[in-house]
Amino acid sequence: MQAIILSIGDELALGQTVDTNSAWLAARLAGLGIPTLKHETVADDLPALVQTLQQAADRADVVLVSGGLGPTPDDLTRDALAQAMGVELEEDPEALATLNRFFEDRGYPMPDRNRVQALFPAGGCTIPNARGTAPGLKVSLGRAQVFVTPGVPHEMKAMVHSSIEPELLAMIGDQGGGRPAILTRTIHSFGIGESDAAERLGTLMDRDRNPMVGTTVSRGFCSIRVRSEHADPAQAQRDLDDTTGLVEAQLGPLVFGRDQDQLATDLVSRLVAAGQSVATAESCTGGLLGGMIVDVPGSSAVYPGGWVTYSNALKQSQLGVDPALIDTHGAVSAPVVQAMAAGARERAGATLGISISGVAGPGGGTDDKPVGTVWFGLATPEGVFSHRAQLVGDRAAVRDRAAKCALQMLRFTVMGEDLKQIRWFARG
Amino acid sequence: MQAIILSIGDELALGQTVDTNSAWLAARLAGLGIPTLKHETVADDLPALVQTLQQAADRADVVLVSGGLGPTPDDLTRDALAQAMGVELEEDPEALATLNRFFEDRGYPMPDRNRVQALFPAGGCTIPNARGTAPGLKVSLGRAQVFVTPGVPHEMKAMVHSSIEPELLAMIGDQGGGRPAILTRTIHSFGIGESDAAERLGTLMDRDRNPMVGTTVSRGFCSIRVRSEHADPAQAQRDLDDTTGLVEAQLGPLVFGRDQDQLATDLVSRLVAAGQSVATAESCTGGLLGGMIVDVPGSSAVYPGGWVTYSNALKQSQLGVDPALIDTHGAVSAPVVQAMAAGARERAGATLGISISGVAGPGGGTDDKPVGTVWFGLATPEGVFSHRAQLVGDRAAVRDRAAKCALQMLRFTVMGEDLKQIRWFARG
Repeated sequence: MQAIILSIGDELALGQTVDTNSAWLAARLAGLGIPTLKHETVADDLPALVQTLQQAADRADVVLVSGGLGPTPDDLTRDALAQAMGVELEEDPEALATLNRFFEDRGYPMPDRNRVQALFPAGGCTIPNARGTAPGLKVSLGRAQVFVTPGVPHEMKAMVHSSIEPELLAMIGDQGGGRPAILTRTIHSFGIGESDAAERLGTLMDRDRNPMVGTTVSRGFCSIRVRSEHADPAQAQRDLDDTTGLVEAQLGPLVFGRDQDQLATDLVSRLVAAGQSVATAESCTGGLLGGMIVDVPGSSAVYPGGWVTYSNALKQSQLGVDPALIDTHGAVSAPVVQAMAAGARERAGATLGISISGVAGPGGGTDDKPVGTVWFGLATPEGVFSHRAQLVGDRAAVRDRAAKCALQMLRFTVMGEDLKQIRWFARG
Repeated sequence: MQAIILSIGDELALGQTVDTNSAWLAARLAGLGIPTLKHETVADDLPALVQTLQQAADRADVVLVSGGLGPTPDDLTRDALAQAMGVELEEDPEALATLNRFFEDRGYPMPDRNRVQALFPAGGCTIPNARGTAPGLKVSLGRAQVFVTPGVPHEMKAMVHSSIEPELLAMIGDQGGGRPAILTRTIHSFGIGESDAAERLGTLMDRDRNPMVGTTVSRGFCSIRVRSEHADPAQAQRDLDDTTGLVEAQLGPLVFGRDQDQLATDLVSRLVAAGQSVATAESCTGGLLGGMIVDVPGSSAVYPGGWVTYSNALKQSQLGVDPALIDTHGAVSAPVVQAMAAGARERAGATLGISISGVAGPGGGTDDKPVGTVWFGLATPEGVFSHRAQLVGDRAAVRDRAAKCALQMLRFTVMGEDLKQIRWFARG
């Protein structure tokens, strides 16, 4: 059983929107042992859609389509599917009733244009949408079972979980198994480059190895992908676990999690376990660090809050930074981040205080402190420390990496690990 | 002239990473009047890569490939291209020297494995990479000119700007014109749903209209896409501008910008023009709002900073919120957000203070204040106000929309517009 994933939309084909659905769908299929031949993105263009649907349905057993089910005139997937099948559209009275209820529940009458969302190609059926107005579609075409979901990611995901995955599992059962299981896992690290990671992983990355190991860098994270294939699912799982262990041993404390794990989530768990708490004092990141911590449900147990002291006046009035330090050393300096971290720790009554002050660019760089220079302050019960990093990229990248550096610094501090293992602090 | 865009990588095909490059490349091509036939995503698999490259090069005049040029064994694009062309790889001495310098400049010796990055298929050439180690590749294959860039987005973008776009412009010139110009623009709004926007746009959204108008919803933004096609580029531009004007008139102050414009950027410009400044007091957003403001270069002129008062203790000690208000009304309430906003405005010496306190979930909801309930406080020279919104989605979505609501509230305040035009405040 093989799949093709199609994403439909002018905004995708023209590059005005990034397609995140295909990646999510491919990962779900891989989890079911169904390999994806390819992803294809096409515009809201009726003839092109009809042709793409027919070709995909000739090559794959499962075609997952997202997008083009909305109520507006640029939503053509429904019509394209009917044309590809050579049938008419019919109205599903139950879907229409659900649509009417959806609007009633929100206190609006249903706009007329939403009525098209109750249509489905004759011979197929609609799939209920628990999250929005557009039902999905299920039809047979060529050799394939075709499932169509709305393009809105949370509606698509809910529909896959509740309706499409159970059908795929049934299809796998009907085919009597025999396909090897493909299990994947991604191991996430922060603070190491891709080449250094590859050096450490060595022969684990040989292309003919099973499980196969690959690396990817994204937004500062170096992620190690493991793909295990075996006729016996239990053996595939054991192989996956073994290789995961070997990878994690090579990268040590730089690894913070797997798959959907977040750096901040692991930090919050470790702070909770250690009975610690942290207060933040941010300048160039402007609240990104606090935002990442609060992203974790339950973070209130370890995070009372923090300060965005973007102006020097607020650094002084709110965190007690001595103006003489700023005059002498500048706002991006060891003494100032130390005073910020100590001030935040004390005022919030936290066990740890962390601070960030840097030159995020595009302006403001000097020979001494070029764009990308970021100072981090850390206040602990043992004392107050500071570390300098030279980050690369544009303003958004420098600020993002700075916030993540601070999360990894805090994590290493709670773990009692040497910060010099983090690439940017290697010479600090 | 037509293009096909290929994204290469196991992590993309398996769904472990979202492909953002294809969208960016498609938008650049559209800007040059080169339509994209399709985007395709394939794995790091040598035979599949060879076949995909050959097929794309038979169908399109331009094939843009990103990914698979790294130094590790799972990077196979270079080899696949040579096989598709039926030639050997050769070493570019200049590219090798550049690679060596790249590492020398950073104080490391070049790892051996990076040497493969100086290879190119015989008959083609490398393209310099100003941002990283992997040079790009340029070759002729089938009827197409094939350009390969690294997968790392900022390296890819720099290479397209500096080397590939000039070549594409030269190719367009050589073909003697004659293709209609395709110009696109996206108009971004916040605070309206897709169906409501479609109702307002009416016949502007007819599918046979030129310029063609479509809508997309992403992360709370409702974006209106305009696509203008005309043999005369000047006429295409006039048509685009006319339709843009019609769309913007329908959506009024909800529109904050076009194309790459950001909501926070427009807010900062308006604050600067009005001589205003703002201080933030955030609870459930944890710094996201401050982070969005500081994302704008030059925001220090209007943003002294703010507070992340996630705990009630910090709301009291740092912003002067009366504990009795929290006891009586709860931390998510009109009196508390009003006190937070007033406290932030006064302490930071800003003309405006804004505050956010809400139930982001997944826990913490009650009958009275279900998950998604968010209170906003606004302190101005005229007084202190509060507004309640009921936002939908998971924790991350509620927090993201809340921060954007606050930005749009501030923008409407500076513009003197009625907040009830924002959908979530319509009944407030």
